[in-house]
Amino acid sequence: MAAMLFAFAVSCLHADPLPSWNSTAPKKAIMEFVEKVTTSGSAEYVQPSDRIAVFDNDGTLWSEQPAYFQLFFAIDRIKALAPKHPEWQTEEPFASLLKGDVKAALAGGDKALFDIVMATHAGLTTEEFEKVVTEWMATAKHPQSGKPFNSMVYQPMLELLAYLRANQFKTFIVSGGGIEFMRPWAEKTYGIPPEQVVGSSGGLKYEVRDGTPVLVKTPELVLNDDNVGKPVGIQRHIGRRPIAAFGNSDGDYQMLEWTTAGNGPRFGLIVHHTDAEREYAYDRDSHIGKLSKGLDAAKTKGWTVVSMKEDWNTIYPSP
Amino acid sequence: MAAMLFAFAVSCLHADPLPSWNSTAPKKAIMEFVEKVTTSGSAEYVQPSDRIAVFDNDGTLWSEQPAYFQLFFAIDRIKALAPKHPEWQTEEPFASLLKGDVKAALAGGDKALFDIVMATHAGLTTEEFEKVVTEWMATAKHPQSGKPFNSMVYQPMLELLAYLRANQFKTFIVSGGGIEFMRPWAEKTYGIPPEQVVGSSGGLKYEVRDGTPVLVKTPELVLNDDNVGKPVGIQRHIGRRPIAAFGNSDGDYQMLEWTTAGNGPRFGLIVHHTDAEREYAYDRDSHIGKLSKGLDAAKTKGWTVVSMKEDWNTIYPSP
Repeated sequence: MAAMLFAFAVSCLHADPLPSWNSTAPKKAIMEFVEKVTTSGSAEYVQPSDRIAVFDNDGTLWSEQPAYFQLFFAIDRIKALAPKHPEWQTEEPFASLLKGDVKAALAGGDKALFDIVMATHAGLTTEEFEKVVTEWMATAKHPQSGKPFNSMVYQPMLELLAYLRANQFKTFIVSGGGIEFMRPWAEKTYGIPPEQVVGSSGGLKYEVRDGTPVLVKTPELVLNDDNVGKPVGIQRHIGRRPIAAFGNSDGDYQMLEWTTAGNGPRFGLIVHHTDAEREYAYDRDSHIGKLSKGLDAAKTKGWTVVSMKEDWNTIYPSP
Repeated sequence: MAAMLFAFAVSCLHADPLPSWNSTAPKKAIMEFVEKVTTSGSAEYVQPSDRIAVFDNDGTLWSEQPAYFQLFFAIDRIKALAPKHPEWQTEEPFASLLKGDVKAALAGGDKALFDIVMATHAGLTTEEFEKVVTEWMATAKHPQSGKPFNSMVYQPMLELLAYLRANQFKTFIVSGGGIEFMRPWAEKTYGIPPEQVVGSSGGLKYEVRDGTPVLVKTPELVLNDDNVGKPVGIQRHIGRRPIAAFGNSDGDYQMLEWTTAGNGPRFGLIVHHTDAEREYAYDRDSHIGKLSKGLDAAKTKGWTVVSMKEDWNTIYPSP
């Protein structure tokens, strides 16, 4: 019995925590960093409460092509709400969306995107919105893969999240995506609870309706959690500087910069989309998830760049 | 040896987790609630991840008389900064403050308070501000007790925080006070880490100064975390409804209302300041920590009211 237990313990100690990562430089860098900060007595030991790790979502934890998944949600909402909004038949960006012409709808740039998100996200109570997101996630399918959107998460990143948590890291999402769009499924999908999700945030208004208190989503932008907004979101929600940051696009540049400029051991990592066959390949010229500045800076900043094609032996979890 | 261990285990099981609480109704109500939601198999069992408890700070975890402690901090900052602001000698509310006339300074109402807070809190980087708060907390003394401000915390509430955490609750501060004013000392004083502190929040701006990234505090109000702002702050930061809320003034009314209106077992508690001898006695007519609406509603809402005089055998921790 004792021998069996011992054998089991030894096999546990030697189990690979990152089996979907090839034995290339990024995996080695991650594991060296984690061992360094968790070895008590080492000069680079970091106490558990300071082991904060932040993850971008779109393109870092799940796919983001051919468009941000939240945009597909918004389009489905526009279609569902259209009968109540006859004016959308002629008003942009809604008219183009209802005709199925996403490209024309988005020709209006950030303003068009903002209008789409606000029209589909505001007005509901937080509980109504949570229900709408949960139902959509359970039924909607990605237009190219035909799979549920929350199955298009990266298996290597799921392993990384679990590995960090097993080493007493607290893992947070810090995403340009909507905070209330991510919270309903982030715990089940990533093991990240609602209070550890940071994202772009709209307004909220407290009301008592027929004796029942509700929080109503209002059409303001309280935090644009992208670019320079990411360190702001980190400070506002977490209140201390992370020691590790994981991103994939130039929208993550300041989050990586802020994280890795701190004192003591730091880790920055960029997921580079290089696998047209198993996922998508894009970087400097992409309209979504553009990665140019980050790719140039990675070497001087000491950030690890992961090539999905070379460094990951698996992309998505097996169904 | 086994007998000793057994005796130790039994004594642990019977140790009183709330020794500073008298054996009156509030203590009984707290312990019944905690036992109910933590007994697996019971109809009112709540899974650990949903055991969210929120605490007001001023008047609930520490004293708030004769003025909010953060105001003493702001006044000390005004004095320290005055040499750089000759205009404050004639400009209100600063002129009165510098003459030591707090009452005249605050005659300007919320606008005066806002000006004082912004003048003393904005302009610094988050790291500079943290240093200023930490130094002040280590040296400043309460004008009446002569004690450090963070020693004027309530021993019964420290026991309650520890008791809830021992029962797998996650404890949060949700305070009208400044989020960055509380974070530097909340972990050491209350065991509440920065990411579990919600408070009134100013603006933040990300800048790179001579190659070093900083977050600069700006003079805007992003969240007024009081009254209807408390449920908003809870949703923004925590993203789910707490099952227990602890407050002391009408500024906590909506937080208590929002928390206890949820489905399943809920707990709301109001600390009533009834002890002029050991602390302060005030409620309906107080200019600080006014408690009137909450006192009227407690019975119909099922909120527990703690009389500091009757229900607590100790107020402050022994030095």
